[in-house]
Amino acid sequence: MISRIRRASRAPLRLSKGHSVVVGIGDDASVLRIPKDQQILITTDFSLEDVHFRREWHPPESVGHRCLARGLSDIAAMGGEPIAAFLSLAVPAKLPQKWVDGFLKGLLTLAKRFNVKLAGGDTAESPGGVLADIVVIGAVGKVPTPVLRSGARPGDRIYVTGDLGGSAAALDELYSGRKAKQSPAQFRRHFFPEPRIAVGRAVREKQIATSMIDLSDGLSTDLGHICEDSKCGAEIREGSLPLARVRKPPRQVDRKFALHGGEDYELLFTASPRTRVPPRIAGVPIREIGVITRGTKRTLITARGATAFEPQGWEHFRTLV
Amino acid sequence: MISRIRRASRAPLRLSKGHSVVVGIGDDASVLRIPKDQQILITTDFSLEDVHFRREWHPPESVGHRCLARGLSDIAAMGGEPIAAFLSLAVPAKLPQKWVDGFLKGLLTLAKRFNVKLAGGDTAESPGGVLADIVVIGAVGKVPTPVLRSGARPGDRIYVTGDLGGSAAALDELYSGRKAKQSPAQFRRHFFPEPRIAVGRAVREKQIATSMIDLSDGLSTDLGHICEDSKCGAEIREGSLPLARVRKPPRQVDRKFALHGGEDYELLFTASPRTRVPPRIAGVPIREIGVITRGTKRTLITARGATAFEPQGWEHFRTLV
Repeated sequence: MISRIRRASRAPLRLSKGHSVVVGIGDDASVLRIPKDQQILITTDFSLEDVHFRREWHPPESVGHRCLARGLSDIAAMGGEPIAAFLSLAVPAKLPQKWVDGFLKGLLTLAKRFNVKLAGGDTAESPGGVLADIVVIGAVGKVPTPVLRSGARPGDRIYVTGDLGGSAAALDELYSGRKAKQSPAQFRRHFFPEPRIAVGRAVREKQIATSMIDLSDGLSTDLGHICEDSKCGAEIREGSLPLARVRKPPRQVDRKFALHGGEDYELLFTASPRTRVPPRIAGVPIREIGVITRGTKRTLITARGATAFEPQGWEHFRTLV
Repeated sequence: MISRIRRASRAPLRLSKGHSVVVGIGDDASVLRIPKDQQILITTDFSLEDVHFRREWHPPESVGHRCLARGLSDIAAMGGEPIAAFLSLAVPAKLPQKWVDGFLKGLLTLAKRFNVKLAGGDTAESPGGVLADIVVIGAVGKVPTPVLRSGARPGDRIYVTGDLGGSAAALDELYSGRKAKQSPAQFRRHFFPEPRIAVGRAVREKQIATSMIDLSDGLSTDLGHICEDSKCGAEIREGSLPLARVRKPPRQVDRKFALHGGEDYELLFTASPRTRVPPRIAGVPIREIGVITRGTKRTLITARGATAFEPQGWEHFRTLV
């Protein structure tokens, strides 16, 4: 399998902007060169069968795409640029080679779009299901600094990119058993999510945000991370949430998916009320959905009044449906 | 669990020689700063239950130690210095917390000895056994360059550090069922292998080696990697092999363990016949065991004559015992 991955990743080693993979897959370690005004970003994410995906629900191309997208989205949330990925992949002995080919195709297609080099990794025989761990290495300038989760201040406005709930809406259908398989075309956000690299980079370079995170666990959970790390509270206006439209013809998703459903991989950021935040960044719509407050309380303002807005990330959500 | 890992890794963020972890565990990605004359080394290694270890054989401290040692050894084989590690760890819901504590203790004790910072990672619930993936980030100067597998030339002498076969000898006893448990004190090399960081670094800095690899899969397999990548053959003198001594009182291991057994994590390197290779480097004995030849044949010179020396790495070896 390693030779297949090696072949699949044969592509020009020279990367954009002075980064280069000096030594790629095949030696004891890979060697990367980073320009001297850059810092390195590193993120790792598991994609485990029956935890993060199911082989009967997700085509292998989707599993490979989602595996890399998770890491790219983390780099986006720091305002960085992804440069290389490392894949650790363990598969059961009896897994059809066609599945591995599809997985790699999905991963490498996404990697190519973002000019990310598959530069190494590890392979093993899995004692159970398919186990993948993706490492994404990014680069980010020293000035402006990477955008952390800890910089939000009371009075800051809260923004999200794109729209929310599209991924959880697909999961809901899958878990409900109404359909054994979902059409990736109807739920593209779930099967082929789009990491917001260009938005994250613009937000950092233009120093728009005081804090930023990617929405992988769901709005209620990820907003909680911002509030905890920034030691503040938040007020979200339910009516302002940009609800995803799924299926063909498109229909808006239920609000609960936008509030608590994960894996949309949109960005949530906060900005000072004095900062002019444009309605689109890098072509992606930006929506103001609330405000950072003093204290630690998170509140949801609905048509029926204010309620506590507690984390119900998709892990929790999943057990509900 | 993530909070436990976070606590466990709270230590000074400033690392040696100008490297620093600017942002550690807890944000979307970790941020590392590397001095401008350095390149980055990256290596990833799985440690999967029932593939790389068994919970009934290996104490959790040993599993944690071995997990990190695999990555450190890869950095050693490039002549680099490890600076940070990232741990992706998935454990079954019912795993005792004590096991995780022991695992982290073993990993962090080794990390501390090498001044390596646990700077991030991922956690998940495992659908099967314990699944760990370790990423080690190292740094290496641009000059002298990292020592690759591809630089061996006909006439070069072949050297190994330390002694061989100690790890496989322990595995042999475990697989044979003669003992349900081995004493880590009697088979230290298997349970707590020592990555040869200082040796690797000295070999690079003094420009001693033309190629280098760590002995993780076994001499016959890893020598094969050097020969394939360097497009050459090799001749090994069986009588020159430094055989490990195990148990108390110490006894030499069977020769087959030194020839084919893996996980010793010693270094194998090649040097020009004009290079003076000292008998010890960084306090570790160095033994000349053979010579690089033209062509592609690997030969073992024994008391009974010359035979083909084909890879029988420990994966293969394991199915034999």
